[in-house]
Amino acid sequence: MTAYDDSNVFAKILRGEIPAHVVHEDAATLAFMDVMPAVDGHVLIIPKAKARNILDVAPADLAAVIETTRRVAVAAQKAFLADGVTIQQFSEKAGGQEVFHLHFHVMPRQAADTPRKLPRPFADPQILAAHAEKIRAALAE
Amino acid sequence: MTAYDDSNVFAKILRGEIPAHVVHEDAATLAFMDVMPAVDGHVLIIPKAKARNILDVAPADLAAVIETTRRVAVAAQKAFLADGVTIQQFSEKAGGQEVFHLHFHVMPRQAADTPRKLPRPFADPQILAAHAEKIRAALAE
Repeated sequence: MTAYDDSNVFAKILRGEIPAHVVHEDAATLAFMDVMPAVDGHVLIIPKAKARNILDVAPADLAAVIETTRRVAVAAQKAFLADGVTIQQFSEKAGGQEVFHLHFHVMPRQAADTPRKLPRPFADPQILAAHAEKIRAALAE
Repeated sequence: MTAYDDSNVFAKILRGEIPAHVVHEDAATLAFMDVMPAVDGHVLIIPKAKARNILDVAPADLAAVIETTRRVAVAAQKAFLADGVTIQQFSEKAGGQEVFHLHFHVMPRQAADTPRKLPRPFADPQILAAHAEKIRAALAE
């Protein structure tokens, strides 16, 4: 498999080179708003450790990522009064991956929603900031 | 959230009431072929513990499920010489869930494939048995 490439956008977020609307951070993981959300409240969860995707991630890093994913899913469901949650993880281009640092998608879903398909527009940063605040509040409950 | 319902089909598989093409079993998890596969090699991974979905699963059970999911993803990629892997987890009907026992989908993907959409046909049991054997062999490597 292709080696990890430090120039991906999530590596830049981890290095603080570009900003993100963070909803959770701990020693092993970071969770932040997808800037091109498929639905309102679309969050990405990544390990701080370098991993291209699920095919090369260390088990301990994956365990940390899925626990943050679970917590964010519960919080996003509450914050958006969602009827359900969809979680996705794509590995390699054929699997649907576009940024080559392991990430899980958490999408709070409404019964009648229609997720936006790629390519999707960038969301308004002020709206993303407000959504991140709602999820942070739910995580703190 | 709705309580766990013991009558779901995965609970019946865990109780041995209906068969499954098993690719992996350990103390906490079971992995078996999806009988209505979206792609060849489509595997489902479930906890043995009762959990409706990611919104109520115990962290330790989720950790076990994601580690089996990782191992199955790596094995399925090898077994099917796949170009990528797609992982999905649906919680509640609005999230895409159809069987109300927590499960992760692992789908080995080919660059030019077109996953079958729901409702999908049942696969030939002999083909499922052969696919399970390929993945078991890759897990044993």
